Amino acid sequence: MLKPAFLFVAAVVATSGAAREQDRRSPNEIVAAAPASDWVAIAPSDLLVMTLAPDAGGKPRQVVIQLMPPPFSQGWVENIRTLARAGWYDGLSVNRVQDNYVAQWGDPDGEDAAKAKKLPAGLRVMDRADYAHQLNAIAVLMNPCGDRSKVRSVWLCDPYAPGASFRRGWPVSTDGAREWPVHCYGMVGVGRGMPPDTGSGAELYAVIGHAPRHLDRNIALVGRVVEGIEHLSSLPRGTEALGFYKTPQERVPIVSIRLARDLPEADPASSSEAAGQQTRPRFQYLSTESATFAAYADARANRRDPFFIQPAGGADVCNIPVPVRRLPAP
Amino acid sequence: MLKPAFLFVAAVVATSGAAREQDRRSPNEIVAAAPASDWVAIAPSDLLVMTLAPDAGGKPRQVVIQLMPPPFSQGWVENIRTLARAGWYDGLSVNRVQDNYVAQWGDPDGEDAAKAKKLPAGLRVMDRADYAHQLNAIAVLMNPCGDRSKVRSVWLCDPYAPGASFRRGWPVSTDGAREWPVHCYGMVGVGRGMPPDTGSGAELYAVIGHAPRHLDRNIALVGRVVEGIEHLSSLPRGTEALGFYKTPQERVPIVSIRLARDLPEADPASSSEAAGQQTRPRFQYLSTESATFAAYADARANRRDPFFIQPAGGADVCNIPVPVRRLPAP
Repeated sequence: MLKPAFLFVAAVVATSGAAREQDRRSPNEIVAAAPASDWVAIAPSDLLVMTLAPDAGGKPRQVVIQLMPPPFSQGWVENIRTLARAGWYDGLSVNRVQDNYVAQWGDPDGEDAAKAKKLPAGLRVMDRADYAHQLNAIAVLMNPCGDRSKVRSVWLCDPYAPGASFRRGWPVSTDGAREWPVHCYGMVGVGRGMPPDTGSGAELYAVIGHAPRHLDRNIALVGRVVEGIEHLSSLPRGTEALGFYKTPQERVPIVSIRLARDLPEADPASSSEAAGQQTRPRFQYLSTESATFAAYADARANRRDPFFIQPAGGADVCNIPVPVRRLPAP
Repeated sequence: MLKPAFLFVAAVVATSGAAREQDRRSPNEIVAAAPASDWVAIAPSDLLVMTLAPDAGGKPRQVVIQLMPPPFSQGWVENIRTLARAGWYDGLSVNRVQDNYVAQWGDPDGEDAAKAKKLPAGLRVMDRADYAHQLNAIAVLMNPCGDRSKVRSVWLCDPYAPGASFRRGWPVSTDGAREWPVHCYGMVGVGRGMPPDTGSGAELYAVIGHAPRHLDRNIALVGRVVEGIEHLSSLPRGTEALGFYKTPQERVPIVSIRLARDLPEADPASSSEAAGQQTRPRFQYLSTESATFAAYADARANRRDPFFIQPAGGADVCNIPVPVRRLPAP
């Protein structure tokens, strides 16, 4: 394994600090002013549409998850595509909601060999080494913990790793030689048993509380909720150990989980949507390599909009959520 | 104002690192083994009991809040005691629930001078300087950002300040000369208007998402939820801007907010509890100055219990929640 070259640079600023200090726009205002070219389309093969049973008032509940692109966690991501295409998740349920931690779904009988739902063929078995990936080049870390007056080129001070930043739309940490995605609010991960089990992707959870970063490199992350997190985060908390529901009646049924690419495109000329049929949603994320994102991250770390009196001078990687937006049907 | 003397010390470890590396207990197991002397009683004058209207199934909903002790935010805390003793909060409501941010309660007509509920006399007007307090001695900061292999004497690497730690049971940040409480999950703060308004304590919120640390030193923190946070965090999210509920019917009524010291002590010989009357709850927190807390914090930052394969080597101050427990009635 490569020995990382640690280099802490304290003087590189992506854009002029003086210019930023004049900018009193809120983070949302900065994002709203982004040019169209700063937005990146999410491929329909990377969108997972989870439909829960309607709530007590009959309202539909849909949760949309963006799956991670290469080089992150691709073995598990491909397993999830296989499971979704097989309709394997349909009829299962949300079985665990633990306050300030996770909402978890899958087969409630998954740990009972006699009752567990049979998995489709072809699922890959991943290794713990796959929780992180080697960088092609050794990263020059710019850890601004010492001088927190600016977000430097979107490198962030990180209590959990030598460096944290954003890569291809995702929050990551790095030690200079390896890189791994991190457990922020809304991130989706793969439930697993005791090591060396790494999970298949049949059991999934979403983070619904303060970032449980101690799980980084201990569990595979495969995506994030980009719409409808409130349908998970506002569920009643389970009263059993770890937030599992006590009775089957408390579980929230999953009607279906589909890849967006397997849903029909919305057609204004047809009545498919009016008839309640699912159509393919379209989403974009703000490029984390864009100038808009750098300004947005700086504003999250140094709030200068009128409500604030004391800019923090820093932010943790999970307090700079990557902006995502839904596009109207074509 | 004092010019802080920054001194980053990297070699002080509270207890033997080698001894800790042998310790594969989970954080919960460490807390469960704490001697009684490591637990500190919370004074009944520092406990606020908020009773919400029962949920749709008729289940009672009680939220217990610990108010901050000196030297934190005492002007606002005293205002809250005044408001609670006057019964001022009774009949108001939770008006705002914004996902991954806050649940907020108070007078829904508070910003309409004609309709606002009249405040009791004697509320203090606080200054922005009161968001932090001067330290008596200049703190020697031990910021372990550079070497994250251990939690050093419960000083933590902090992206938001030169140092973070725990003081008298509370998570704090410091610049060496001043110290301030920080916005972790469950913390309770004081809603306010635009600066120079600092709020009175009539409008309160609890954090129900990832720590919004950019609010530190911008809003007064006055306490934390020690029981029943799920009655706030699992409420339906408001659909208006900032998570405000659209209709008055969506608001969650507050039956009452009382100081525990103003509630009768539980009496096993009487039927007050059986009759549904409120009695005084009793809580303790784990001393953040105890050896148990140091071991617990180290275990939160370096999970060595069997589920984990890769200890993080660090934690942020909000991922080490201070343990609190309820005592049975005497």
